[in-house]
Amino acid sequence: MSRLFMFEKPLGMRDSLPDIYETKQHVRSALEGEIRQWGYQFIGTPTLEYYETVGTASAILDQQLFKLLDREGHTLVLRPDMTAPIARVAASKLLKDDLPFRLAYSANVFRAQQREGGRPAEFEQVGVECIGDGTVSADGEMIALAISSLKEAGLKDFQLSVGNAGFVRELFLQILGTEERVQELTRFLYEKNYVGYREHVKSLPLSSIDSQRLLAFLELRGGPEVIGRALDLVENEEGKEAVLQLERLWEIITDYGAASHIKFDLTLVSHMSYYTGILFEIYSGKVGFPIGNGGRYDGLLQKFGKSTSATGFAFRLDRLIEALGELDETVPVSCILFSAERRKEACLLANKQRTSGQRVVLQDISGVKNIDACTSKYNDVTFLVGKAGKEPDHD
Amino acid sequence: MSRLFMFEKPLGMRDSLPDIYETKQHVRSALEGEIRQWGYQFIGTPTLEYYETVGTASAILDQQLFKLLDREGHTLVLRPDMTAPIARVAASKLLKDDLPFRLAYSANVFRAQQREGGRPAEFEQVGVECIGDGTVSADGEMIALAISSLKEAGLKDFQLSVGNAGFVRELFLQILGTEERVQELTRFLYEKNYVGYREHVKSLPLSSIDSQRLLAFLELRGGPEVIGRALDLVENEEGKEAVLQLERLWEIITDYGAASHIKFDLTLVSHMSYYTGILFEIYSGKVGFPIGNGGRYDGLLQKFGKSTSATGFAFRLDRLIEALGELDETVPVSCILFSAERRKEACLLANKQRTSGQRVVLQDISGVKNIDACTSKYNDVTFLVGKAGKEPDHD
Repeated sequence: MSRLFMFEKPLGMRDSLPDIYETKQHVRSALEGEIRQWGYQFIGTPTLEYYETVGTASAILDQQLFKLLDREGHTLVLRPDMTAPIARVAASKLLKDDLPFRLAYSANVFRAQQREGGRPAEFEQVGVECIGDGTVSADGEMIALAISSLKEAGLKDFQLSVGNAGFVRELFLQILGTEERVQELTRFLYEKNYVGYREHVKSLPLSSIDSQRLLAFLELRGGPEVIGRALDLVENEEGKEAVLQLERLWEIITDYGAASHIKFDLTLVSHMSYYTGILFEIYSGKVGFPIGNGGRYDGLLQKFGKSTSATGFAFRLDRLIEALGELDETVPVSCILFSAERRKEACLLANKQRTSGQRVVLQDISGVKNIDACTSKYNDVTFLVGKAGKEPDHD
Repeated sequence: MSRLFMFEKPLGMRDSLPDIYETKQHVRSALEGEIRQWGYQFIGTPTLEYYETVGTASAILDQQLFKLLDREGHTLVLRPDMTAPIARVAASKLLKDDLPFRLAYSANVFRAQQREGGRPAEFEQVGVECIGDGTVSADGEMIALAISSLKEAGLKDFQLSVGNAGFVRELFLQILGTEERVQELTRFLYEKNYVGYREHVKSLPLSSIDSQRLLAFLELRGGPEVIGRALDLVENEEGKEAVLQLERLWEIITDYGAASHIKFDLTLVSHMSYYTGILFEIYSGKVGFPIGNGGRYDGLLQKFGKSTSATGFAFRLDRLIEALGELDETVPVSCILFSAERRKEACLLANKQRTSGQRVVLQDISGVKNIDACTSKYNDVTFLVGKAGKEPDHD
């Protein structure tokens, strides 16, 4: 075990210095404002949850959980996502007859990193969950709200890839027959390893028609024309219904006037194993990872004893800020340097300037070692030092 | 080990449901706004820190720390306060010639609870640190800023008890002679056990003059007249200087026009063992515990290798909200219930209302099981269901 320097931070943990902190607050506030306009209510949940309850309900890999023991011998986890805690709250406190419920959050989540790879182990998500509405309209609202929030935050260049986890499952199950084979093939999609996918398909003992269907499936990416091709590929009713959901979704997003931001990608699956229907990922040109993702997870509430449909999405604030690029959030700060004789005058001036909305540092000059270095930080400096000069004229 | 219900949360962990969440955000925003006006820059630090560094530098008792092990075998802690992490950041990144630095934070801190006692194990602090300014003006700024922020948050009924940790230490050390005896007697003050203090003083082998001084010390509470009595009690230069700091502080707070909120309490000590000078606690009539506290801690930065003076304070958001009492933060929310034929019209109406600043839920009526229960949550409901009626006239 190496000795630590006093300044070191745990693996993947970061400080937010003033500029980035202010940028985060600005972007978070824009997202939250839009989410509130759409009638979502923000809630908070604890940083620590029981492993047995929320920890196991979450879709995050066990090895990514930060775990600790409490005094009763129960294992606690630092929440790895917010969807499972929100499901806990919704199931325990909120579910009554007055569904659907629209909830939102702005919170840090924690995912332990295996080794130094520059990935944050703690990051902030801003997200929503619409609980108790099984219609495609609710899926459409997720996508339209995500688009509207990103625009409010100032992002211009972004696209949503939209798929349906139910479609992939139905198609694969019908062709492959067993859950294990479905999982095996799905893993290639999750890893976006399409070469591996093709080789795996060719190695399977399938009829040439089924083999062709699985290869043609890979091409189901593009505009609404993809829907017809997907309908041709799938043979059972559940699979066709999953495709028709995407057709209805397209109409809904068109009614919102937001269709230009979406592309279908029917090969989309997610590491979030709880997605059951329509799902999406949000990309922005400059960033290699999704800046947000979401989808329908109709099975999760069941783990908390309530059988209720649900859909939601979350933005990753750090990646969204990366996508937004250089933002100049610098707000000018003035400084009043005073000596004891003129302190009262300095207090009054600072109060007046602050009341008018300015940011003003009030600094006793005897507390400063290097006047030039200290004052260089401020946009303007007023000296109230020594005996007062001529008082201003009063008419 | 008992089996857990799915809804259970770890000891001392709480959810914030929508009303309290919105109240918190409103109060936090008022505090943060005022703190920014005074030229403080907000920063963020990780939830997890190394025990060896920030954990041991913190003044929180070891048994109150949430600890976990990382893969390298280092112990991590959930930060028990923000002062030590800010000192780490200031010492590692920010300290240059341009002192003083004014930093602020808004963050959750964690303190493990021994048993079910209704105390939160995670709570939010909003606070500031002024680093590198050893003048009483900086101490005065802490108190004036605390008062001004509380007023901005809407609190009317509050008082600050102000003391000087250096004065207590000098007086006790001069009379009692050893560090151990000073600690022993100080413990009664920390526990606010004045009966125990008196009995302990009487049990000590002291001259009757010194015994009387220690008993008279307990009476050093009240307005500025306390200062003269404190000067009479203390005999060495360092002790007198500590009292004179309070005299200068009184003048400064008077110049800020805020003296009506402060009372001297020279018996004030703190569990925060790092306080070295002027310190204070903030009380509001309705709440049994301090809603905030602060003071000078000139020794802490030394632990991170930089010898620099510092002073700061923190509010406890949960207690401040308790002090503020019932706040009605309810913002009206409208609902537009639509059926598929009129979805586009509903989207346009929702967009128009949201753009004008209203909070509007857009709900597909086919996603609602119980229309009455669902709509009862909203301040007004517009039905856009079935075929459209007469179109509005267009001139």
